[in-house]
Amino acid sequence: MVRNSKPSNSSMSSLTIDQIQAPIANDIKDFEKKFRSSMKSNVMLLDRIMTYIVKRKGKQMRPMFVYLTAHICGTAGDATHRGAALIELLHTATLVHDDVVDDANFRRGFFSINALWKNKIAVLVGDYLLSRGLLLSVQNNDFELLRIVSQAVKEMSEGELLQMEKARNLDITEDVYFDIIRQKTASLISSCCGVGAASVSASDEVVARVKLFGEKVGLAFQIKDDLFDYSTDERIGKPVGIDIKERKLTLPLIYTLSKSSWLEKKRIINVVKNENENPKKVRELINHVKAMGGIEYATTAMMKLVEEAKDLLAFFPDSVYKESLLGLVDYTINRDK
Amino acid sequence: MVRNSKPSNSSMSSLTIDQIQAPIANDIKDFEKKFRSSMKSNVMLLDRIMTYIVKRKGKQMRPMFVYLTAHICGTAGDATHRGAALIELLHTATLVHDDVVDDANFRRGFFSINALWKNKIAVLVGDYLLSRGLLLSVQNNDFELLRIVSQAVKEMSEGELLQMEKARNLDITEDVYFDIIRQKTASLISSCCGVGAASVSASDEVVARVKLFGEKVGLAFQIKDDLFDYSTDERIGKPVGIDIKERKLTLPLIYTLSKSSWLEKKRIINVVKNENENPKKVRELINHVKAMGGIEYATTAMMKLVEEAKDLLAFFPDSVYKESLLGLVDYTINRDK
Repeated sequence: MVRNSKPSNSSMSSLTIDQIQAPIANDIKDFEKKFRSSMKSNVMLLDRIMTYIVKRKGKQMRPMFVYLTAHICGTAGDATHRGAALIELLHTATLVHDDVVDDANFRRGFFSINALWKNKIAVLVGDYLLSRGLLLSVQNNDFELLRIVSQAVKEMSEGELLQMEKARNLDITEDVYFDIIRQKTASLISSCCGVGAASVSASDEVVARVKLFGEKVGLAFQIKDDLFDYSTDERIGKPVGIDIKERKLTLPLIYTLSKSSWLEKKRIINVVKNENENPKKVRELINHVKAMGGIEYATTAMMKLVEEAKDLLAFFPDSVYKESLLGLVDYTINRDK
Repeated sequence: MVRNSKPSNSSMSSLTIDQIQAPIANDIKDFEKKFRSSMKSNVMLLDRIMTYIVKRKGKQMRPMFVYLTAHICGTAGDATHRGAALIELLHTATLVHDDVVDDANFRRGFFSINALWKNKIAVLVGDYLLSRGLLLSVQNNDFELLRIVSQAVKEMSEGELLQMEKARNLDITEDVYFDIIRQKTASLISSCCGVGAASVSASDEVVARVKLFGEKVGLAFQIKDDLFDYSTDERIGKPVGIDIKERKLTLPLIYTLSKSSWLEKKRIINVVKNENENPKKVRELINHVKAMGGIEYATTAMMKLVEEAKDLLAFFPDSVYKESLLGLVDYTINRDK
């Protein structure tokens, strides 16, 4: 494994997920044990579903943010494990619910819970996971962690609903866009970092600093995700133009609209509103956004957020953990799915 | 308004809901204010939905258990209001989720959230309500209340899942039946009473006593609900035989099975399994259960629970609140829907 000998805040590192995880490999193992045991139930059906959920785990981005932040703020311990499990339980609950809502049959290459079992079971499993997260926290008096995470759950649902409200009217400005992605995406990564710091009893100032760091990373993460919609690379994880089909206006298009004449604007809105099922029209719109510099504008905004996030870490002494955290920031905007 | 001059533990009172509510009318008003304000959002769509939810409120049984228990244990105050709001937020969240799952278009005579808006919105609204309940508690350091309620949320989802697991195999015993209804129904009423007592800083013993009281009332409530399935009265709220159609084995049928020969048992299971869509066969089964004394057996079990519940209240001094609470117990088993 090759790593840069000296961590640097400004240059781009390109650590792989394994390299980023290396300093916290034991933590992640402990976390997985904690996570599994926090899902145990004496209902057989539930236990079978839980085993399935554990098996299809993703890249563990959220626990990584929790542990790396805990380590740069102090010494990760039991409260950190519980914090990581709390967030993962709540996150898994929302994924299981999302599968029901979207009628999705797959998640991370596996069948979704609702595809294998029934919708009703999936909703109940989501509620069960939520309650286990709550119990884990209240039984251990982790009230500060719970405070941070509850705020994130509220913001995530509000952000999604705000986005749906705006998708109806197509009257979204850049400010509203940032409000939406701050709530629906950045709040979770921000709370991962906040939980990491609070779990090692960091001061309020330090907790606020890493939460702001997480928020900026989360905003950059979502802009990257929204940029995928304009990619022509077949290998990425998301079908091109799907956001337009769902009438989601994201930064590249919002910028383009702001630079367009009244007539052009009307034409664009018409495509999003009435011709969003027409692949040719959607492709034309994507090309127009590119020509207008929408991709460049969004990429610049994303890079600026990444630099601001990294600057917030300059405050902490250099360490393998800090190096990994910087690597994780770069990973969020360099990933290809 | 006519009320008994002397509260009695053993005799049946028959107070109306309005009479039961009279001593806590101001509390309920305060609660409604608190509940409304705890749902406020700056997302317009969300605010519209919340206004709608408040409008279609039910009989307020849960807040009534919270306030009446608080009053017999001490002096109801701000924590009691927050406790009642916490429970109602969580309960409303599960109702909104249930509507999605069941694809229900009506709830309490109103259109359901998912019928008026979309499924996705309904799931998000449920999550939002949950998070508001959590925040209300963590922001006010109501950790004891949160502990009681989290346990109930866990049990409710486990109970429902246990019931679904058993519905597959039709291998349910009386013990398992009581486990299921204890978890899926009684745990919520039990937690209402626990929250009421804990909100006025009652001792652990008193909290345990009223939780047990609530559990017994909740068990009786569910047996009553299950008995509706065998009613021939058209006015009741539930279509007759629906439990059998959904392969739910409840106490009258479980008793009948336990009293049946091997051959009879096989015949009954066959109806539930393979002929549960045949109205004639279902009606025959209902008549058989009646003839075997299944209704009587379940009614006796219900009455025994009610008496045990009332006996637990003998410990508390007589008061208008205690009188109302006893009236509420009777109401739960005398209601006709």
